[in-house]
Amino acid sequence: MVQAYILIQTEVGRAAEVAERIRGIEGVAEAHDVTGPYDVIAQAGADDIDSLGSLVVARIQRLDGIARTLTCPIVNI
Amino acid sequence: MVQAYILIQTEVGRAAEVAERIRGIEGVAEAHDVTGPYDVIAQAGADDIDSLGSLVVARIQRLDGIARTLTCPIVNI
Amino acid sequence: MVQAYILIQTEVGRAAEVAERIRGIEGVAEAHDVTGPYDVIAQAGADDIDSLGSLVVARIQRLDGIARTLTCPIVNI
Amino acid sequence: MVQAYILIQTEVGRAAEVAERIRGIEGVAEAHDVTGPYDVIAQAGADDIDSLGSLVVARIQRLDGIARTLTCPIVNI
Amino acid sequence: MVQAYILIQTEVGRAAEVAERIRGIEGVAEAHDVTGPYDVIAQAGADDIDSLGSLVVARIQRLDGIARTLTCPIVNI
Amino acid sequence: MVQAYILIQTEVGRAAEVAERIRGIEGVAEAHDVTGPYDVIAQAGADDIDSLGSLVVARIQRLDGIARTLTCPIVNI
Amino acid sequence: MVQAYILIQTEVGRAAEVAERIRGIEGVAEAHDVTGPYDVIAQAGADDIDSLGSLVVARIQRLDGIARTLTCPIVNI
Amino acid sequence: MVQAYILIQTEVGRAAEVAERIRGIEGVAEAHDVTGPYDVIAQAGADDIDSLGSLVVARIQRLDGIARTLTCPIVNI
Repeated sequence: MVQAYILIQTEVGRAAEVAERIRGIEGVAEAHDVTGPYDVIAQAGADDIDSLGSLVVARIQRLDGIARTLTCPIVNI
Repeated sequence: MVQAYILIQTEVGRAAEVAERIRGIEGVAEAHDVTGPYDVIAQAGADDIDSLGSLVVARIQRLDGIARTLTCPIVNI
Repeated sequence: MVQAYILIQTEVGRAAEVAERIRGIEGVAEAHDVTGPYDVIAQAGADDIDSLGSLVVARIQRLDGIARTLTCPIVNI
Repeated sequence: MVQAYILIQTEVGRAAEVAERIRGIEGVAEAHDVTGPYDVIAQAGADDIDSLGSLVVARIQRLDGIARTLTCPIVNI
Repeated sequence: MVQAYILIQTEVGRAAEVAERIRGIEGVAEAHDVTGPYDVIAQAGADDIDSLGSLVVARIQRLDGIARTLTCPIVNI
Repeated sequence: MVQAYILIQTEVGRAAEVAERIRGIEGVAEAHDVTGPYDVIAQAGADDIDSLGSLVVARIQRLDGIARTLTCPIVNI
Repeated sequence: MVQAYILIQTEVGRAAEVAERIRGIEGVAEAHDVTGPYDVIAQAGADDIDSLGSLVVARIQRLDGIARTLTCPIVNI
Repeated sequence: MVQAYILIQTEVGRAAEVAERIRGIEGVAEAHDVTGPYDVIAQAGADDIDSLGSLVVARIQRLDGIARTLTCPIVNI
């Protein structure tokens, strides 16, 4: 199991709707609007790093209004 | 009351008109064109951090010609 | 109440100890080591934006091994 | 006369004292602690762009606890 | 007189034509394609910081294929 | 002969197809999808720095779905 | 098995010695000096994302002369 | 022959002395203090990309007061 924070930049004016839609995606635990260089921060989990990559590219990045995502996998070191 | 600096990147060639429109928004005290990585810097205030977020997303980001905004709330520490 | 994600860069080789110490600070709900441009991501809460600023500057930034922090307050818009 | 915003990163834990000292420098109109990628944002003015450069390098950057400054001159376009 | 370096990001695949057109603008001394985070670097001069801002916004940013410009005025300190 | 790493940002949702097409370009040795601030990292070689620039601008940046490329030439120092 | 590119910033003047030492670490396939925002780019592999995190923090970041590392895990999507 | 712009960040308060010393290095044509995210911008040339890398690492980065350099080779495309 791999968990990750996903730092998201949205198109201007669309942060709230993007956060709400991301919360509806399976595997996503939380998603909040934030101020600063990112617009939405989400937490998600998947079986392994490849499934996590697929979740981000095939599910989250497909949403309308997403400009960039930055996936930060949690590591237990 | 929360005050913030809002660092704004505009679409190319549109900094001057964006700055002028932002100055017309209620809650905005100042907005200037600048050189450097940002094109316009504004100062604004709202009742709390949520209202500030709404001001940025619902009023400033709705303006034509805005590419990215970066909100930096002032903190008294 | 204001919640925030705090994106943290540590001095090289010190991410694990920093994450552990941050988890012991009152007001911090979670802190994890991550890969990518940040080394540790934490979630914390405080009464208002000023208390949040104080928590970050007076408690988290005082820890040995912290290089930079980037506070992203959650906004409900 | 050239006015500028100066976006400042401080060493960790030193934002408050830096902001206070910058407020005491001649030519500086305001300086506030902020959250986000910068720690302090100041506004200052000088006779021309060279004097502004000198103000930043010779006065502000000489302060203890400053890590990086980013000067954004205001332009009237 | 104010001189500046202008660091330019172009739309993908258009660096060469952008550099060539910028070389044709009055006030621009040089413009070259480069590798790295910027695509074209130009040198230009104007009477003062406001005229420099106008040169960048009204002449350079108006060119087709420009995505972002970052103006770095030269200071004699 | 100049070798380089090319760090690529793609439009959202298109990393996989971009990586596959880049692998088909002559002079490209490898191209992989990655997580983090870049979406695809490729390795390529050309006769000299100018040919490398041409490979990136004329071949890679022409692909549909590329947003930004950052070429990092290998140097033997 | 997880593979990754590791983008490394070194202290000034130390890129060559850092690249050479990284090449001697078990799990590292390649490491080269580059120009651009990073100084050295390495490729490495580990059993899983946690072991990769440990390789970076416990082996690479322990080297003298490393300032920042940015790990970009390869994903097969 | 390879020409390059070298974008330099200095330690705070040391931009002027760094620019002056860089101007004295063989192969450097110009070096100026600038405002913005970089403190000094230089232009230099060398026989090939490897010699350019050596010039930057062995000569420029050895100077006291340099924090980071970003080399942007000019390409003729």
